[in-house]
Amino acid sequence: MSFQPIYDIVEICARKEIRNVVLCPGSRCAPLTLAFTRNQKLACKTFSDERSAGFIALGMAQAEKRPVALVCTSGTAAYNFAPAIAEAYFQQVPLIIFTADRPVEWVGQQDGQTIHQQELYRNHVKKSYQLPQHYEHIDDVWMINRVVNEAINLASQYPAGPVHINVPFREPFYPAPEEDIIFSLAPRCIEDIPNTYELGDEVKKELEKEWTNFNKVLVVSGQADHSISLSRILSTTSNQLNIPIIGEIISNLHTLDESIAHADSFLGVASEEIKEGLKPDLLITLGKSVLSKHLKNYLRNNKAREHWHIQPDGNVADVFQSITRIIRATPENMFSFINTLAPKTDFEKQKQINYKQLWNAEERKTIRATHEFFPHQPFGEFELVNEVMKGLPQQANLHLASSMSVRYANFIGLSAEKNGIKVFSNRGTSGIDGATSTAVGHTLFGDQLNILITGDVAFFYDRNAFWHNYPLPNLRILLLNNHGGAIFKMIDGPASLPEANPYFVTEQKLNAKYLCQEFDFDHLLLDNTRKIKNLLADFFTIDGRTKILEFESDADTCKTIFDKYKKKIKQHYEMPK
Amino acid sequence: MSFQPIYDIVEICARKEIRNVVLCPGSRCAPLTLAFTRNQKLACKTFSDERSAGFIALGMAQAEKRPVALVCTSGTAAYNFAPAIAEAYFQQVPLIIFTADRPVEWVGQQDGQTIHQQELYRNHVKKSYQLPQHYEHIDDVWMINRVVNEAINLASQYPAGPVHINVPFREPFYPAPEEDIIFSLAPRCIEDIPNTYELGDEVKKELEKEWTNFNKVLVVSGQADHSISLSRILSTTSNQLNIPIIGEIISNLHTLDESIAHADSFLGVASEEIKEGLKPDLLITLGKSVLSKHLKNYLRNNKAREHWHIQPDGNVADVFQSITRIIRATPENMFSFINTLAPKTDFEKQKQINYKQLWNAEERKTIRATHEFFPHQPFGEFELVNEVMKGLPQQANLHLASSMSVRYANFIGLSAEKNGIKVFSNRGTSGIDGATSTAVGHTLFGDQLNILITGDVAFFYDRNAFWHNYPLPNLRILLLNNHGGAIFKMIDGPASLPEANPYFVTEQKLNAKYLCQEFDFDHLLLDNTRKIKNLLADFFTIDGRTKILEFESDADTCKTIFDKYKKKIKQHYEMPK
Repeated sequence: MSFQPIYDIVEICARKEIRNVVLCPGSRCAPLTLAFTRNQKLACKTFSDERSAGFIALGMAQAEKRPVALVCTSGTAAYNFAPAIAEAYFQQVPLIIFTADRPVEWVGQQDGQTIHQQELYRNHVKKSYQLPQHYEHIDDVWMINRVVNEAINLASQYPAGPVHINVPFREPFYPAPEEDIIFSLAPRCIEDIPNTYELGDEVKKELEKEWTNFNKVLVVSGQADHSISLSRILSTTSNQLNIPIIGEIISNLHTLDESIAHADSFLGVASEEIKEGLKPDLLITLGKSVLSKHLKNYLRNNKAREHWHIQPDGNVADVFQSITRIIRATPENMFSFINTLAPKTDFEKQKQINYKQLWNAEERKTIRATHEFFPHQPFGEFELVNEVMKGLPQQANLHLASSMSVRYANFIGLSAEKNGIKVFSNRGTSGIDGATSTAVGHTLFGDQLNILITGDVAFFYDRNAFWHNYPLPNLRILLLNNHGGAIFKMIDGPASLPEANPYFVTEQKLNAKYLCQEFDFDHLLLDNTRKIKNLLADFFTIDGRTKILEFESDADTCKTIFDKYKKKIKQHYEMPK
Repeated sequence: MSFQPIYDIVEICARKEIRNVVLCPGSRCAPLTLAFTRNQKLACKTFSDERSAGFIALGMAQAEKRPVALVCTSGTAAYNFAPAIAEAYFQQVPLIIFTADRPVEWVGQQDGQTIHQQELYRNHVKKSYQLPQHYEHIDDVWMINRVVNEAINLASQYPAGPVHINVPFREPFYPAPEEDIIFSLAPRCIEDIPNTYELGDEVKKELEKEWTNFNKVLVVSGQADHSISLSRILSTTSNQLNIPIIGEIISNLHTLDESIAHADSFLGVASEEIKEGLKPDLLITLGKSVLSKHLKNYLRNNKAREHWHIQPDGNVADVFQSITRIIRATPENMFSFINTLAPKTDFEKQKQINYKQLWNAEERKTIRATHEFFPHQPFGEFELVNEVMKGLPQQANLHLASSMSVRYANFIGLSAEKNGIKVFSNRGTSGIDGATSTAVGHTLFGDQLNILITGDVAFFYDRNAFWHNYPLPNLRILLLNNHGGAIFKMIDGPASLPEANPYFVTEQKLNAKYLCQEFDFDHLLLDNTRKIKNLLADFFTIDGRTKILEFESDADTCKTIFDKYKKKIKQHYEMPK
């Protein structure tokens, strides 16, 4: 039986602009592996741990902004992709997952490496397909072509996301050694022209009419890609329409010169009076997940009269429990329109100016307090994050692992001069599991410097991110090693329980010394604060070496410093202006 | 809101004879974590990598032969359990998986650590439950009690397997520091009396009548637990009824003094004439999966006239494509009955004796050839496996990782004197992913010495098996480090392709040196064959140390030796008796 229709899948992938392929070793997937590696238009890399491979593919697709193909053999190999696929689904990153399988009649027959793979990832993919296992009938060939076209189109179209193609294979899997794989010259490609999600004229008229009703308009962005074009548009919204724009570090709105990045800090301590003043009458939201619990609670408890959520599809993620209208447009589209709206009366305009000034005042106060907090005795990981973020080059990718890493970075924030920095974080599911592999995926894709800030639990969890044969000269890792899940000491609840350790903090003893020897990485151990300057200079130097800057502390010290920071914000806040 | 009904889940677990609990750190699962750790009747251990934790729980449940509870927080944590759950499902190992979740109304709302957890493991669990998220109504409390009872019963009953209980939790998760958790004194426990799967009198009569039709009866056991009682019964079947019994290493039938353990080797090279002679007229099968591809192909191509499969439930796994009858009994039950059947005529009996002798002759020939193969120049991992298996103590658990490890061990086999050795291997799905963690689970459960034979890909894949705070003094690992998936050089197909490396073998450079330093294990590196004796003596010495005996080679050497072994068997086979 010729695998020609299967080989042609690969040619379709290449013609539909897939460029990168992540392979995992196996026998049953051989027809796909051979076709992918023999197609000159595709770059293949291979990884033995499928969990890590899944996140590496996710990182590549994040960086590339187009689908990456991911291939594995049958059995639990496929299940090991699942955490990365769930993250890709909620983070809207396009992946085409090909899982090799036994023919359907052999499933459940106690044969090796066979699980129930059809629809394995359930509703964490946009769609699941089962390919035919015979190619004799012309309709089978038609189906394979059609399905692969649809799958790639679907993965790319808004909202982007993973799709799963399960591919049953009968033996023999391997061609003869001398046999070439010849790709069909022009397999059919189905183009799927994307919707531009423009606002219609009727809708514009309606919105324009209503716009005059609101004088305290607030914009909040969840996680969003770095976009200079959106940033320019929002800059007008902010500066000319005087609309405060809240963006956390994962919103990539440090590219705006005046965004509100510290809402989490000040909303946690602000008085009821100030909170009342900050309350919007119209809330406009865009983007994906929001990090700040204080911001979420504030907006849930201080609901805007109206809440417009910009979302090209109809899916309602009502995280502030206040959505009254879905705007089916892109943020670029919507804010470009808003920027053209006729000016309000001076009186109305002044109200909006005053409203923005309230937000700005809180933001500035918090930035000042945060700056004044450093240098701090004792020195701690929070301060080290501050130093690293100050030292970031103008163009780089900043990767933030879950738990305290992304929170530290968010408390500090990025200044607008750093607008070449792109921030990435797996906030689709906020798992602890794949931060390093995701950063490795970025590093394997492009030439940018990639800096990952991570805690020790996330770091050692995902240590197989390094277990492959590809050099990572542009990877830098700041490892905040507090020897366990320090966050459990820092949040209310578990900290004071007798079970805090071992059952929440779960102390772990490793540091990165042996790992660095094993993989021949530079281990920059910050064991004396006088070394900081030199170590940071070394850390950012590009000299072909992978570098891990490690600082060891413990959960109690982290907690002490973090408590002092919260106190500082509170005190500063309560001082007269 | 009081979590009393949740706390009582734990008391029900304790009363229903669960003893071991595997916890993974997290906040949302806190009510379960606290209740499990505060219940004096339960032993809890905590692990940070959920993938490894899942396999550790599997190992504990294999060793203990009763359900182990497995707990994690919400999000991708739960998905990381999936590979171990699939293995438990196909290997029929009981696990009770509790996954904490957000309340249903918060799923899909872009809140952190939230995926679609209901029925997450699909048909890799015996049943999935969703617990209520309110406990105000008495019917909610009733449901929680009922579900947990049913889940534990279901996991334990034949065929044992995993069950999934998804538990939504609302904040606050934590009791006050001074607050005690008081378990209800007598939460309702529902006993579920197991079926004994006895053959009925009618069935016995029918089978007895038919029995006389067959004079070439063959028994084949798939993977099965070590059972002295079954072994005694089968010994009678073999010795008095002269029925050849095929059992691979994973069948644990080395406890029988005369089982056919080398069918894979000789069926691969036997002539058509011999194969014709070995063909059964009645095939009786028991157990789970079969390792040998040659055995499977032989029985598929030489179908018995009738094939009775002993299987207490009605699920048909028809791996030889020949089942004609399902016997709903336990193997003990069925073979005890067979052993009582009236003797056949001398003529018929002689036919069965002759038939058994044919199988025995092939078996003896292959054992002799295998013994003669060693010592071999060059020395290789195959010979080292032989040495380690010879040196095994009388009482120990032998764990075999997938791929070449289990195959080497099967080619060699265990002699009947080693009948205290219990053999374990994750052949439910034959994944590469959790062999070490499974062996760690056994080590954490009992006092037996646990010896794992593993290749380097399986070993480094699952290295987080060691990332916890529990000592492993009874763990020994024979690490066959051929720096990649050598099996891909040893099977037909990929070996001769230009892509063999990197895309199939996938060379990897690590050895266990740094890992041993990191975890303070003894690293016994066999870098000179003259050291073997001393290293093996050290390896088996019990002195409180975890030991890894490592031998480095490469795929080509492994292939050369293995090819010679196959040739040896073939030559030996073709020699006149």
